[in-house]
Amino acid sequence: MSKIKRDKWEKNFSEWYDNVLRTGEYYDYGRYPVKGMGIWMPHGFQLRQRIIQLIRKVLDSTGHEEVLFPLLIPEDLLRREKEHIKGFEDEVYWVTHGGLDPLDVKLALRPTSETSITFMEKLWIKSYKQLPRKFYQIVSIFRYETKATRPLLRLREVTTFKEAHTVHASYEDAERQVHEAIDLYKEIFDSLGIPYLISKRPEWDKFAGALYTIAFDTIFPDGRVLQIGTVHHLGQNFPRTFDFKIQMEDESLDYPHQTSYGLSDRVVASTIVVHGDDTGTTLPPLVAPVQVVIIPIPAKDEDIDTLAYAEELALKLKARGIRVKVDDREELRPGAKFYYWEYRGVPIRIEVGAREVREDVVTIVRRDTREKMKVEKQELDAKIDELFREIHETLASRAWNWMRSKILRTTNIEEARRKIASERGIVELPWCGNDNCAFKMMEKIDAKVLGTPYPEEEAKGKCPVCGKDAKTWIRLAKTY
Amino acid sequence: MSKIKRDKWEKNFSEWYDNVLRTGEYYDYGRYPVKGMGIWMPHGFQLRQRIIQLIRKVLDSTGHEEVLFPLLIPEDLLRREKEHIKGFEDEVYWVTHGGLDPLDVKLALRPTSETSITFMEKLWIKSYKQLPRKFYQIVSIFRYETKATRPLLRLREVTTFKEAHTVHASYEDAERQVHEAIDLYKEIFDSLGIPYLISKRPEWDKFAGALYTIAFDTIFPDGRVLQIGTVHHLGQNFPRTFDFKIQMEDESLDYPHQTSYGLSDRVVASTIVVHGDDTGTTLPPLVAPVQVVIIPIPAKDEDIDTLAYAEELALKLKARGIRVKVDDREELRPGAKFYYWEYRGVPIRIEVGAREVREDVVTIVRRDTREKMKVEKQELDAKIDELFREIHETLASRAWNWMRSKILRTTNIEEARRKIASERGIVELPWCGNDNCAFKMMEKIDAKVLGTPYPEEEAKGKCPVCGKDAKTWIRLAKTY
Repeated sequence: MSKIKRDKWEKNFSEWYDNVLRTGEYYDYGRYPVKGMGIWMPHGFQLRQRIIQLIRKVLDSTGHEEVLFPLLIPEDLLRREKEHIKGFEDEVYWVTHGGLDPLDVKLALRPTSETSITFMEKLWIKSYKQLPRKFYQIVSIFRYETKATRPLLRLREVTTFKEAHTVHASYEDAERQVHEAIDLYKEIFDSLGIPYLISKRPEWDKFAGALYTIAFDTIFPDGRVLQIGTVHHLGQNFPRTFDFKIQMEDESLDYPHQTSYGLSDRVVASTIVVHGDDTGTTLPPLVAPVQVVIIPIPAKDEDIDTLAYAEELALKLKARGIRVKVDDREELRPGAKFYYWEYRGVPIRIEVGAREVREDVVTIVRRDTREKMKVEKQELDAKIDELFREIHETLASRAWNWMRSKILRTTNIEEARRKIASERGIVELPWCGNDNCAFKMMEKIDAKVLGTPYPEEEAKGKCPVCGKDAKTWIRLAKTY
Repeated sequence: MSKIKRDKWEKNFSEWYDNVLRTGEYYDYGRYPVKGMGIWMPHGFQLRQRIIQLIRKVLDSTGHEEVLFPLLIPEDLLRREKEHIKGFEDEVYWVTHGGLDPLDVKLALRPTSETSITFMEKLWIKSYKQLPRKFYQIVSIFRYETKATRPLLRLREVTTFKEAHTVHASYEDAERQVHEAIDLYKEIFDSLGIPYLISKRPEWDKFAGALYTIAFDTIFPDGRVLQIGTVHHLGQNFPRTFDFKIQMEDESLDYPHQTSYGLSDRVVASTIVVHGDDTGTTLPPLVAPVQVVIIPIPAKDEDIDTLAYAEELALKLKARGIRVKVDDREELRPGAKFYYWEYRGVPIRIEVGAREVREDVVTIVRRDTREKMKVEKQELDAKIDELFREIHETLASRAWNWMRSKILRTTNIEEARRKIASERGIVELPWCGNDNCAFKMMEKIDAKVLGTPYPEEEAKGKCPVCGKDAKTWIRLAKTY
């Protein structure tokens, strides 16, 4: 069995990433004539679609209701919450003309939907009896990014923005919702085998308009940290701005409390990346558009029909709901087909040669380990089920172990600096809680503050900047 | 059994329609502060989602590949095909600013995607061997409509635009694709019980940039005709504009041929409307978000737990994959619940009272006919399956019969004028094929030309304008 290599993946990540997106036909980027916008190609679209299905299943089963709001938000609506618009002002695309006529009111392409959703919630919700209410939508959002764009990581059109917006009768119930959202995001990331670290973002880096922000981060092969999900407690900010009051249980009128939480294209990108290796990637069987590819190897003996045998296997697997493909292309040699499907991340390959037909067996190759095995045909069903489970677990534990190896807990600023300088990753230091000490650490370590662990974690020892007792750990990293 | 009434539906359609969309919580319209844009509410969203699933199933099973293109199209790209842009120029929304900066190139919100898709096809497709290729996407499109907007019928943001774009090596293969598309659209509309008439649009009303356009129309309760789907043979127009040539089988380089075909929010609207009556609508079981609602009627005898009985029934139905809901709201009386679910179009209602529990039976009410029946509990599964089939057939045949009753074939222009003036609908007259005769008919009958029957149908008799031999029938109607 040939060993899995991750040299290019780790040492030349940027090139590896562009190559996999293109060769695996996930997302065509850099050729469409608008910067920061690309095309989901058929294979990538199916992966995205299965991840969306997973998200929907998790949200629908916990009382979330899917809706769809207009893309365009009038300027006055978007500007109403002052902190919020300050956070987005420089990044909003504006529609100013309809046909040849200038519009009376400029319309923003939504950068996020708190304002338009709160506007409608005020019309829909009158009483605490209707609460909690949990809405979500999966839409494109637009941000006129000035930073360098990267396919699926920093786009000007984010095409898979899942934004949930919830309304509650009390601060505490909104906080309970924050916890629920975190649990649901854990479930989603775990189902994809994506490792994560959960941090409470520092005050200066919370969502524009939120009381606080909890974020999920993962580490990419180049050691940089990617934010892959956020959960915000919005308090009463937006209802106050929109004069959205409801009848409370004690018969008073008061502003309800809100949360919002989001996922993006980065979930799809992370699924491809964290399970990558030098010949492409392995997609978790749960979401792989093709779960099993069968490659018939033409036999010299004309009496042996490997294609017919392959198709018979495929029919049986399909009947059990498995997404299977027979690659019967005549113009490609088996080796070229192996290569083709490895880039597409198909978790299981079945090779059918003359010997398999003669012996009535099946040769299986696992994509994640390249392990090759021979099984009796009647054992195939059970073997596939077993392998799907094993592949998922192998992928998840490899990804978690790799990420954990990139996290250094230290009390020494110089050691932290060296770690970030040499291989990036995340450093955790004891922290007194004072913002100025955090700023000094950022400067000395040359990294950005991710925040403090969620759930809160007490740190023993001293803050390495001021020498006072540490309250908790602070995380720093180079980020995307 | 109380009879179904369709008085308000037919005589006061506009009011009926707004009322059903609002009361049934399909689409919140007229309150969001941008004209022509509304919100898909949870119930409407689920109906839309099931219709999208149906469309995907039909397209995916016939080799169509789903993709997702950027919303924004640069001005120079959109303007390249001259006929095409003429058709859309007055209706395009333009993004001119990113943040506070004016953009170098104005960006259009896509009105349709022929230009951007052809631009990428040129990069993807090099040889006839890769053809045919069939792409589609389901996206929002934007049209700055100057006509009066109507919810889901004439929107400025069309949120459910399914646009398919195909590429072929020859004119004939593209024509074959036109026929395939028509068959697929028939299958989709038949699955929803929506009646239709297929017409070849006249030259002056074809899609901007097409060789010809075939359209599906249905008739709404007010007698006006709604276009619900279109199929275009695009010929080589767009490839020629984009200098998109491929290698042909004879080794020459030539422009490929294209088709495109589209469906919109109007499919969802039609599903709600054509099966409507004075207390709401009946949704076809295939796409109804809730297929069976169970309403427990509290028993006076405290020993009888109608809710527990209802939940037991629901569990059994759910296990068979049926979308069932127990309405256990305490604040509503059974009558209010009946009303609530009738507006939501739930095809089957089950009432559980003391008698049902005592006798171990189930009382079923069909939404489409209001027919009430009692069945033994163990017969419920079979009865539900049977009723789903019967309801679909009853809905479809009622809708088809109603539509057919609104179509008049006549050789007499005055009779046609009276028909349109009194009850609208569609009139069919013999036609010589001369455009001027068609224009005169439009003027005299005071209606718009829909086109000629597809497939072509020979007409005997004379053109009532010029008196020459008729070649075919021409259809006229008042349209949306």
